Amino acid sequence: METFEVTILGCGSALPTMRHLGTSQIVNIRNKYFMVDCSEGTQLQLRKSKVHLNRINTIFISHLHGDHCFGLPGYISSLGMLGRTAPLHIYGPVDIERVFRPQLDYFCNGLEFEVVFHEIDTTKAALIYEDKSLTVETIPLRHRVACCGYLLKEKVPNSERTTPPTPARSYAFCSDTAYTPSIVPLIKDVDLLYHEATYGDDCQDLAKKYFHSTAREAGRIALDAHAGKLVIGHYSQRYTNEQVLLEEARTVFPNTLLAEEGLTIEVGR
Amino acid sequence: METFEVTILGCGSALPTMRHLGTSQIVNIRNKYFMVDCSEGTQLQLRKSKVHLNRINTIFISHLHGDHCFGLPGYISSLGMLGRTAPLHIYGPVDIERVFRPQLDYFCNGLEFEVVFHEIDTTKAALIYEDKSLTVETIPLRHRVACCGYLLKEKVPNSERTTPPTPARSYAFCSDTAYTPSIVPLIKDVDLLYHEATYGDDCQDLAKKYFHSTAREAGRIALDAHAGKLVIGHYSQRYTNEQVLLEEARTVFPNTLLAEEGLTIEVGR
Repeated sequence: METFEVTILGCGSALPTMRHLGTSQIVNIRNKYFMVDCSEGTQLQLRKSKVHLNRINTIFISHLHGDHCFGLPGYISSLGMLGRTAPLHIYGPVDIERVFRPQLDYFCNGLEFEVVFHEIDTTKAALIYEDKSLTVETIPLRHRVACCGYLLKEKVPNSERTTPPTPARSYAFCSDTAYTPSIVPLIKDVDLLYHEATYGDDCQDLAKKYFHSTAREAGRIALDAHAGKLVIGHYSQRYTNEQVLLEEARTVFPNTLLAEEGLTIEVGR
Repeated sequence: METFEVTILGCGSALPTMRHLGTSQIVNIRNKYFMVDCSEGTQLQLRKSKVHLNRINTIFISHLHGDHCFGLPGYISSLGMLGRTAPLHIYGPVDIERVFRPQLDYFCNGLEFEVVFHEIDTTKAALIYEDKSLTVETIPLRHRVACCGYLLKEKVPNSERTTPPTPARSYAFCSDTAYTPSIVPLIKDVDLLYHEATYGDDCQDLAKKYFHSTAREAGRIALDAHAGKLVIGHYSQRYTNEQVLLEEARTVFPNTLLAEEGLTIEVGR
């Protein structure tokens, strides 16, 4: 089976701590690498994961909160010093170019590669990226600012063989979001679901207030979507041990695991 | 003797690596904490050093290259979440406000504290900060962009005692800079000098080209200034072992040590 895996570079929430950095992930589909979100420190996490910084051509940003994008200027700046020439494509909500372009112009002038921003409408599910190996669709989420998740689905090559082809594998990234059942049909039968679980049952009020989910709600989304596996993350720094979040998610959806920095998860049943 | 010490949070150069982060330091003078430069990842380094993020009221930025200031938005954003109300003062070259204010407005709106930028003229030595315990003066440096170092000097309280007062201790931070002998009179008799040493003798051409110093040149500045002690840093990532830089500096100025993340150095003879 060809490679399809997700590596967690950071899975904390707004306040980076000694235990967890802000959100960032690498998705490797058949040795093509994609980045999802890019918090402060992502370039170092990437080095630790042994993926060369220059292997990434496409970044998907869920929303414009610092813990999901403050790593962009440093990462782009480093790519410049590494002699990159290939364009870097960054997908994200409206405003992403307005916010980051001036910084790049100031700090990274003379880059020998193009940074191409693709501003997307986070309010509807749409196909935003396609190549020979995969498609990427947006998943509208409900957060305090414009925010979407991403569904990465591999393509299965048409074949003339008579044996049935391997089913296409898929990965859904859903962070940050209030509990939003309307995403269920969009991620139906997904093999691996990453869903934020900022809080436990003890903080349902905070989850509502800040448009986040509880671990139990993440489990419910996974269950309703018939996901193969659920990985939760974006833990509030109030939890010094996330075991309680894992247990609450598992009461609803047993095949759940905790994200942690450096963890690589294979996508597939 | 009251506390006067410098803690290295990061001492690498432009490309952060697994060994060294970009430049950032904490200076503790009588339990008042100052930050000098703020590279990506500084807030986490600060946590590791056990200094509470909120203990810092004043930041001095040497110049507007990413490896000296990309940590500002994340650090300020975290201060907001920690409920800070005291103003934060940031000294740095002209443009610092123009470059960072829009990011703060976008990502950190609703901050309950004021971020006050003080734009300074890096081309002349001037007193830019003074309080009951210390003075801070700029040290004009020669780099590819406007850049200055900082001289932090403690005040010795006037006393009616007949014994002579303890001499005032001082710390000079000089990074990034080409070899610039004109700074020697400004830092004469400094107790501790941090001077960049990006390269060794093997890369004198690169040092010239990029307006950096060699370790030997750092040693020469320390010698000519009659510094008490020299700490070198801002190592190019080409050196996987900085021992060669240390040796070259020591041929000129024996009392030299290598900066490294987490190192705390006492200021004083």
